[in-house]
Amino acid sequence: MNPPATTPPDRDEPHHQDDVQDSLREVQVLLARQKRVETLVHRQDMPRHELVENLVHKQHLAELQQKLEGMHSADIAYILEALPLDERLLVWDLVKAECDGDVLLEVSDAVRESLIESMAPSELVAAAEQLDTDELADLAPDLPDGVLADVFRSLPPEEREELRAVMSYEEDTVGALMDFDMVTVREDVALDVVLRYLRRFDELPDHTDQLFVVDRDDCLQGVLPLNVLLVKAPETEVSAVMHKEILTLEADDKAEVAAQAFERYDLVSAAVVDMHRKLVGRVTVNAVVDYIREEAEADQLAQAGLIEEEDIFAPVIDSVKNRWAWLAVNLVTAFIASRVIGAFEGSIEKLVALAALMPIVAGIGGNAGNQTITMIVRAIAMGLVEPDAERRLLKKEFGVALINGLIWGGLLGLVAWWLYDDMRLGVVMTAAMILNLLVAAGVGVLIPMTLQKLGRDPAMGASVMITAVTDSGGFLIFLGLATIFLI
Amino acid sequence: MNPPATTPPDRDEPHHQDDVQDSLREVQVLLARQKRVETLVHRQDMPRHELVENLVHKQHLAELQQKLEGMHSADIAYILEALPLDERLLVWDLVKAECDGDVLLEVSDAVRESLIESMAPSELVAAAEQLDTDELADLAPDLPDGVLADVFRSLPPEEREELRAVMSYEEDTVGALMDFDMVTVREDVALDVVLRYLRRFDELPDHTDQLFVVDRDDCLQGVLPLNVLLVKAPETEVSAVMHKEILTLEADDKAEVAAQAFERYDLVSAAVVDMHRKLVGRVTVNAVVDYIREEAEADQLAQAGLIEEEDIFAPVIDSVKNRWAWLAVNLVTAFIASRVIGAFEGSIEKLVALAALMPIVAGIGGNAGNQTITMIVRAIAMGLVEPDAERRLLKKEFGVALINGLIWGGLLGLVAWWLYDDMRLGVVMTAAMILNLLVAAGVGVLIPMTLQKLGRDPAMGASVMITAVTDSGGFLIFLGLATIFLI
Repeated sequence: MNPPATTPPDRDEPHHQDDVQDSLREVQVLLARQKRVETLVHRQDMPRHELVENLVHKQHLAELQQKLEGMHSADIAYILEALPLDERLLVWDLVKAECDGDVLLEVSDAVRESLIESMAPSELVAAAEQLDTDELADLAPDLPDGVLADVFRSLPPEEREELRAVMSYEEDTVGALMDFDMVTVREDVALDVVLRYLRRFDELPDHTDQLFVVDRDDCLQGVLPLNVLLVKAPETEVSAVMHKEILTLEADDKAEVAAQAFERYDLVSAAVVDMHRKLVGRVTVNAVVDYIREEAEADQLAQAGLIEEEDIFAPVIDSVKNRWAWLAVNLVTAFIASRVIGAFEGSIEKLVALAALMPIVAGIGGNAGNQTITMIVRAIAMGLVEPDAERRLLKKEFGVALINGLIWGGLLGLVAWWLYDDMRLGVVMTAAMILNLLVAAGVGVLIPMTLQKLGRDPAMGASVMITAVTDSGGFLIFLGLATIFLI
Repeated sequence: MNPPATTPPDRDEPHHQDDVQDSLREVQVLLARQKRVETLVHRQDMPRHELVENLVHKQHLAELQQKLEGMHSADIAYILEALPLDERLLVWDLVKAECDGDVLLEVSDAVRESLIESMAPSELVAAAEQLDTDELADLAPDLPDGVLADVFRSLPPEEREELRAVMSYEEDTVGALMDFDMVTVREDVALDVVLRYLRRFDELPDHTDQLFVVDRDDCLQGVLPLNVLLVKAPETEVSAVMHKEILTLEADDKAEVAAQAFERYDLVSAAVVDMHRKLVGRVTVNAVVDYIREEAEADQLAQAGLIEEEDIFAPVIDSVKNRWAWLAVNLVTAFIASRVIGAFEGSIEKLVALAALMPIVAGIGGNAGNQTITMIVRAIAMGLVEPDAERRLLKKEFGVALINGLIWGGLLGLVAWWLYDDMRLGVVMTAAMILNLLVAAGVGVLIPMTLQKLGRDPAMGASVMITAVTDSGGFLIFLGLATIFLI
């Protein structure tokens, strides 16, 4: 944290995370104080001194409101997320109506839902009307239909068209990321004309690192980076210094393509054009950063078996809903594995050591399979895996599995031998480990590559599938070998 | 993909991902053609027509080299990553020496290692000398000591000081992300003076979206965004339009703080100051994007039990090394779980159904525990969990666990009853499921919160720990209850 500046912070200015956390604590103190007053008055069980209560109540709320007015909408969003539902709605009521739209954009989906539920349709319409069309499109899926229709009617025709366009793009496409805040210039003017033209703006759109050079038909001819505009002689013509070979995106491109381009070429903004090279929008780095974060989070959540991000203060029932689907899938795969064991109950009755050893075979297989699958999914996502690389990758993964199987399987075989004083049990253990690791390697390569060939997301449920295979497979291999050779 | 432009692409210009993949394929075709020639000549087993071979060989290599010269260093890096080791080194040889440094910066750690191993110390020194100090610091850990010392000696004193400074910051701090390409101005000059000053540059540093306003002692007074510089009247003084309330970072701040600030406030660059508000560097959004990606990847890899990113064409032995540590941990936890089962072998012998049912109890517990822990780890990372929230979170998670336990445990109890025609077995199954889910919920909250209180990374090995607890715990609860009530 840095020493506080002497002047009070301007509204909407960003703050260091430590300061924001201090703000959260202040808000919590104010809320707690207010609650204490209410409790005290209630507890005395006397005719309530409503006047006093009201006064104190109002004083705290006014203090809170003042605090909120000095804050950036993203920070308000953070504080709302960190508060339990009742306190959250109290604070939300105090947020100035003109920030409602921005704050709704910034909060997580789960929290947004709780806020929207608390708002009257007229408030929602007012909030939505503050937003740009591209922002509105982000919010639209969460708005009640009536509200959306009202907002739609209130838009000028051209923005209505923009909104319709953005909403028509699928999630995870460039179209869904783009905005329309481009500054365009012609190529046949001098830089000082451009400079004068820019001075007619009150301000330039955020993330304007380059101006888009278009012809009469709005076709993109090149870009004029501000860095070039600022260093070249004012009498130079735009066409002489503009960059012509630039990266352009199309609205139908996958968002991941934009993310890779921004990451690889360190872009701040990029033009979106249609098939005739007509400029239709732009993508900025802040939209890309949000996309990257959300993707990473979605992956992590899916891997752990959660459908979506959870409001940590959500009612228990919402959490149950968010988690039940993957638990159900897990239940089915566990049940299948259990039935595999059931088929060998006779063997287990005769040699009960099998029951104690079998989870090891299944568990290590699952872990190794997850390692393989994660590696392949990542390589596919980065575009490093050609469809014909399958054989090469299989060969390598089988090699790794064989070495791991010999080392760990051998070790566990010795342990089993020593524990149960049965050499043949040890050999079966080692053989089962090696085989299950080979299965894990093969399936770990084939699942994501097959999903890719089918045009699906290679990460989709991959972890669940591999664990299902290595569990059932592990039990089958181990108990099967044991039944053949030991029983 | 967009229609190709009429002029040939400029060197180093970014390309659409589809074009880059086309380039990769072209490179592969050229490599394959060359290999075929070599094989043919070898196979004929005649005195080799060395002249012919050499000619064809050279022709292909020249074509390849030409192809590479038109490419952005990030795209060359991508192609190197997608090629197996022998072809990778062949292509690497053809990359112009002046791009070596940039390409080394762009490739993944694993691939970088393979490239550096193939280079002579003198080549490495030459490559390193092309880089800025902040880039050099990123590369330094991978360079042989001798090379680093040589590079160090070749630097002018002030850059040497910068390099020493950047390298002294720990990974994952703002200091490790920052660069030194700031453009500074004084507050008492007019904007047109600033504009004239900027024209003296050949070009402005990348990601210059704002100029830093400093006083005589280099203390930060504010920033002048280019957007403001461009729209305000030229005679205005800097002090009248500069932003004074700005977000500043310190070099010791966690990188995650910078990432959150960039994400929350949509920044392109931010000033890094010392405790006296002296400007020491800046962080730009491209460094933050890379950091966010790397963090997300590291999380994913760790979750799957991989130490670091793998070069998919790495020798088998490297992959084994990357994966063995987590497999070993998993082996230990699996062994402990196995010993828990071992303690109940008597019960299993008497009622072999227990062996088939016990993995279900353990598996569902592990899945539910991972759901809880992922949710809490995420909330902690976003700063949403106050240390005193423990009780509230525990209460909620216990609630979710109870509902899930009643639903899924009840269902499985019925299934067990039906399968084995034993109502008491069904009741034990249900009770064990409920208890293990409660254990999973409690441990899922307590592990990350305790790690946080101890100042550790709450995600560190969390998944392994929770699975260890729910496996051993699940077996213990189920077999224990069964032994008490059924045997």
